[in-house]
Amino acid sequence: MACALSLSACGFHKKSTSNSNYTTTGSAGKNYQGVIEHGHYKVSKARGVNVTQNSNQYNLKSFETGLTEVSQKVFSPKSYIFQEGQYLDTTEVQHLLGRKSAKNPEGLNPKKGKSSDPNPEFIQQLEEQDFVQQSGGSLKLKGMTIGIGINSEYNYQKKTDGPQYTKKISDAEVKRQGEIAAAKVLKQIRQKKSCQNIPIVIALYKQAPDDSLVGGSFFAYEKSSGTSLGDWKKLNYKTTVMPKASGANSTNKDNESDDNNFSNFKSQIQSFFPNISGVTAQAQYKNDSLAGMHITVTTQFYSETEIQSFTDYIAQAAKKYLPNGIPIDIRIQSDSEMQAIVFRNAGSDKFQTHVLTSY
Amino acid sequence: MACALSLSACGFHKKSTSNSNYTTTGSAGKNYQGVIEHGHYKVSKARGVNVTQNSNQYNLKSFETGLTEVSQKVFSPKSYIFQEGQYLDTTEVQHLLGRKSAKNPEGLNPKKGKSSDPNPEFIQQLEEQDFVQQSGGSLKLKGMTIGIGINSEYNYQKKTDGPQYTKKISDAEVKRQGEIAAAKVLKQIRQKKSCQNIPIVIALYKQAPDDSLVGGSFFAYEKSSGTSLGDWKKLNYKTTVMPKASGANSTNKDNESDDNNFSNFKSQIQSFFPNISGVTAQAQYKNDSLAGMHITVTTQFYSETEIQSFTDYIAQAAKKYLPNGIPIDIRIQSDSEMQAIVFRNAGSDKFQTHVLTSY
Repeated sequence: MACALSLSACGFHKKSTSNSNYTTTGSAGKNYQGVIEHGHYKVSKARGVNVTQNSNQYNLKSFETGLTEVSQKVFSPKSYIFQEGQYLDTTEVQHLLGRKSAKNPEGLNPKKGKSSDPNPEFIQQLEEQDFVQQSGGSLKLKGMTIGIGINSEYNYQKKTDGPQYTKKISDAEVKRQGEIAAAKVLKQIRQKKSCQNIPIVIALYKQAPDDSLVGGSFFAYEKSSGTSLGDWKKLNYKTTVMPKASGANSTNKDNESDDNNFSNFKSQIQSFFPNISGVTAQAQYKNDSLAGMHITVTTQFYSETEIQSFTDYIAQAAKKYLPNGIPIDIRIQSDSEMQAIVFRNAGSDKFQTHVLTSY
Repeated sequence: MACALSLSACGFHKKSTSNSNYTTTGSAGKNYQGVIEHGHYKVSKARGVNVTQNSNQYNLKSFETGLTEVSQKVFSPKSYIFQEGQYLDTTEVQHLLGRKSAKNPEGLNPKKGKSSDPNPEFIQQLEEQDFVQQSGGSLKLKGMTIGIGINSEYNYQKKTDGPQYTKKISDAEVKRQGEIAAAKVLKQIRQKKSCQNIPIVIALYKQAPDDSLVGGSFFAYEKSSGTSLGDWKKLNYKTTVMPKASGANSTNKDNESDDNNFSNFKSQIQSFFPNISGVTAQAQYKNDSLAGMHITVTTQFYSETEIQSFTDYIAQAAKKYLPNGIPIDIRIQSDSEMQAIVFRNAGSDKFQTHVLTSY
């Protein structure tokens, strides 16, 4: 621990030894420091695989952000340095994400079967995060997290250019497939020399449908020090979009009051200008309580003073209508260009504003 | 002043009187509060004219932001509420920005003359800002600022679809044309009943060329309480782009050291990833000292953890290499989508980071 704390002050100071030449990214607050080797960020050995695996970018972003959050439960950023996955490479991950076949025995997904009624691809993405500590001048692997993204829907065509069909995958099946895949991946990683004696955390993520405006959620994780996995810890996380679709019912009273607060916020700001402003949000729930929001406000601006005034107004409306004590950010944009941001970090009660001006 | 200070606490509290029903936008810190009437922002009577007047959007943004800064020198945000221009309407501004003719005697620009050698359009944009104070339950006009943007280049074609020619306009001519226009505009505004006895500030802005990657600068302003303008106050402002074009010489030693600092920052971060990152900046100088920077870093990201690590790293590099005591923001983007922002406000010595994650 003493060693780790000393690291947090060492961003930008090189450690030159016979073994290694690394620095860290430095970190603001509660984030991990990342590994820089010989002046370059140590990127993942499977860099970019998940980018191509997701047709819904929200699944990509929320999977990776959520995975880091799960890691923080086990590997504290105060004691561990974050390293992009170095043990599963591109080919290995691609094989794991493929269908099982004679050529690809590691495939986590079943054979396709009949094209009129194919077996779903259950496992959609997989990511490795490494946690290292300084040891005798170099960095040693001390822990690993593996995230596995499991589809909640499978889209397929019975013939090329034919209509698209969708198979829903039940929560029970998502869980079952995730646990099966987890056991196989754990076994494969334990065969690697450096990975035999470290704690490995596996976290399971339910992918959102391809047309969703918010990503999915992690629903379970488990730390293993051997080759077995058993007692999964449940994560009661949920993501949703606001305003909720008309006709959709909130699942409980808390959500209903959150929806109402958001509606009040929305109506307070959407008619600020003569032209109407679009106001939407992604919300995350943890244990049925609102845990954070990403709000997007889109409107047409006609001057910088309009942007400044609107930004200040939104900060006041957010303070008045949105719940306290959770992280919230509000992206203010025209067309697709961001013009200003209003945000409040976790634990703070003050919204900050920043207008993206120009010289 | 007591009245004004009480206003700063009254955002969102309606003032209902027989005359008016207004609130203000509220304000974070040193910004103006804006006027909201009957629940809607009081937009300019010439809303949108300047958007169509500028083919270079940097000129639009920097003109409006700079104009507010000039206003703050005369009308303190502690004592005055900001109101978008209500006295020059769209038609009037369009007439002023047109060429003078029998039909348009108010035109600030000369007749075109020979198409083989046309007279330049000197005056490109014009904006009114009003400053009001609470008086007996309603808001009374107490001051006005007019910004006038004068071209430093005039682009024309001798015949339709022919090649484009450019006439440079000298600084002396920009100043002369700006002062002539200022006198005419002041005279026209003084004819309006509510504007006869208020202080009017006129500020002159030299437009950047259409292909510039940074806007122009205000170079003079003057406050008038009558119908004449005389003793212009000079503003020694300059905008520039970094890294400077190869072959371009810095005008003085200070600039050279700023360029070097920026180059060090740039080389520290551009090779962070295996794929190179683009790093450019807009810089503003006041009285030959660097007064602020807008930096844009563009790269391809392959995961959220890469974005988080890069953002933390950039914040550290900014602290190490970029000058203290001036406002700086760094926009971190992939393609055209912003992924994170690092910024330090004026007067602060701490960079803040905000990553635009997703649920």
